[in-house]
Amino acid sequence: MSEDVVEHRKLIIAGTGIAGLSAGIYAARANNEPLLIEGDEPGGQLTLTTDVENYPGFPDGISGPDLINRMKQQARKFGADVKNGIIESVDADDRPFEVELTNGDVYTADAVIAASGASARTLGIPGEDELMGYGLSTCATCDGAFFRDEDMLVIGGGDAAMEEANFLTKFADTVYVAHRREEFRAEDIWVDRTMEKVDEGEIELLLNTEVTELHGSPEEGITSVTLVQHPDGHPTEKLDDPTTADEVDEFEFEVGAVFYAIGHTPNTGYLEGTGAEFDDEGYLLTEGGRGGGQTKTGVPGLFGAGDVVDFHYQQAVTAAGMGVEAALDADEYLTELERVRKADATPTASSDD
Amino acid sequence: MSEDVVEHRKLIIAGTGIAGLSAGIYAARANNEPLLIEGDEPGGQLTLTTDVENYPGFPDGISGPDLINRMKQQARKFGADVKNGIIESVDADDRPFEVELTNGDVYTADAVIAASGASARTLGIPGEDELMGYGLSTCATCDGAFFRDEDMLVIGGGDAAMEEANFLTKFADTVYVAHRREEFRAEDIWVDRTMEKVDEGEIELLLNTEVTELHGSPEEGITSVTLVQHPDGHPTEKLDDPTTADEVDEFEFEVGAVFYAIGHTPNTGYLEGTGAEFDDEGYLLTEGGRGGGQTKTGVPGLFGAGDVVDFHYQQAVTAAGMGVEAALDADEYLTELERVRKADATPTASSDD
Repeated sequence: MSEDVVEHRKLIIAGTGIAGLSAGIYAARANNEPLLIEGDEPGGQLTLTTDVENYPGFPDGISGPDLINRMKQQARKFGADVKNGIIESVDADDRPFEVELTNGDVYTADAVIAASGASARTLGIPGEDELMGYGLSTCATCDGAFFRDEDMLVIGGGDAAMEEANFLTKFADTVYVAHRREEFRAEDIWVDRTMEKVDEGEIELLLNTEVTELHGSPEEGITSVTLVQHPDGHPTEKLDDPTTADEVDEFEFEVGAVFYAIGHTPNTGYLEGTGAEFDDEGYLLTEGGRGGGQTKTGVPGLFGAGDVVDFHYQQAVTAAGMGVEAALDADEYLTELERVRKADATPTASSDD
Repeated sequence: MSEDVVEHRKLIIAGTGIAGLSAGIYAARANNEPLLIEGDEPGGQLTLTTDVENYPGFPDGISGPDLINRMKQQARKFGADVKNGIIESVDADDRPFEVELTNGDVYTADAVIAASGASARTLGIPGEDELMGYGLSTCATCDGAFFRDEDMLVIGGGDAAMEEANFLTKFADTVYVAHRREEFRAEDIWVDRTMEKVDEGEIELLLNTEVTELHGSPEEGITSVTLVQHPDGHPTEKLDDPTTADEVDEFEFEVGAVFYAIGHTPNTGYLEGTGAEFDDEGYLLTEGGRGGGQTKTGVPGLFGAGDVVDFHYQQAVTAAGMGVEAALDADEYLTELERVRKADATPTASSDD
């Protein structure tokens, strides 16, 4: 394998979202010459966000791509390298780590920070695979403008769903929000904004509602969806249960575009052979606790930060904080590695003299 | 006590450093109408920093006070109130919390976030109390310019010591750095910069060296210090041990100003009666772990964030991340409190009908 090794690095960082770039800034300042591999979503999820209003330090807000670019510039300024490429696998059987990209290039590294984030989740319903990119989207800010003056359906009940619904009112005839429960789990400010738009007739809520099928074709796009409703919420569960199936209302509903905002799945496939551990949802397990080493995984030299670890807070600034912690933890590991190497080298050198 | 109650708030945040302001931004967006109490160091430690180069998002750096002001503006924009005042005590025996200021004002609050940071540590050596503010300082960026063209002594070996030493070269004849060990624990970039200044003759290192006394008077300022040195480091420990005391070198050293950069003590005095727990160094204990509630203390409704909790990473962006986590945790607590109150109120209301 080593004949394909392109380069050795002290530190490779998987991902150039907020966590990876923040780690890159600190790692570069610590002289760990980090190489950041962009992955298949360079800049991460924040690049899909038009206005970031809650990243501390920007009172007038900042666009997601702009914030990402500023961080990338900052990391490069201190010596970080950012490279296009997708990591296929990390071999942790020996040290240095062998990091293989999908194009066959292999990099070796003394330490690795997994900051590969999470990707938009899908429902796995009929029509999904066929219509993804043809009326079905996981990114309203990317694709909303393509469906001007159509009725649009946002699926979800969190911040992302509210933000996307509000954003889409610029383009849509009516924006419908389908949520499987009665209550939203979005920030109050997003619920309030959404309710204002509901009062203005721009958004219409479909509570206790789920989508079971998408109709249309790549040629004509989405034409309608099948919806199910139950007054107690979670209608598909009720539909699956013979004792409650009769109570579920099922009907076809015409819309021209559907946006999924139903959460994310952590990107960890490339870590499968490393021995790192994951929780039931697939999120990378790190040490946590107090003091140093909170971002350590069970694999010495492998650290985790950002949405690949954090299934709860998932904010830009919490990812940034964790990225910095990973860079500081990795630096401690690399410093110790260097110390041990020097100590090991000393007797040999003196016997050569 | 309640006759003095000025106002009830859903959420009071102790401290307006990075952690408190970041919590304020999110808490305000969550409609929790936070009241931030500035404490005796408004803006926190970052106000003492001239250039913040490593806060992700500012590739050209930003001054500490500027970053703090931007966050304060951002928190206010979403409805946070910031008030001058010092919290004397928090009474957690009943709910709401009673938060008493040193001026006697009492605020009540359903939840409290402790983001009160940490304050500069001192050595407790002779001359310290008398000369603090008269040649002795814990903030080079605040006081450096007062001692132009004098020899200055910085005490410490971490980032703060390196940063202060480098900064002081603008003003000093020579900057001396006294560190009790051989190795610095500062970021490499700071050690490198310091070594460049050493090569240029602007900084001189006094390794394995400690200060045992400050000489001078408020009128003439600091005139000299007593230094002790031992080749194996920690000279004062060696001095205390009769078997090694002879090996310690002790001498008087002329300098015109002394800057302490030897770490911080968490500000927790006002929390003493709450039942919250602290570690051996006095840092506030929080739950940690994975998922929600990481910033919970043992006291329901009391959350902790920033340098009052974190004795290790202590970066602006890690404090910001933790502040946001505390605001999200507090919001979950307040939402549940509201839900329970409404549920409790319902039967009474219907029996009144």
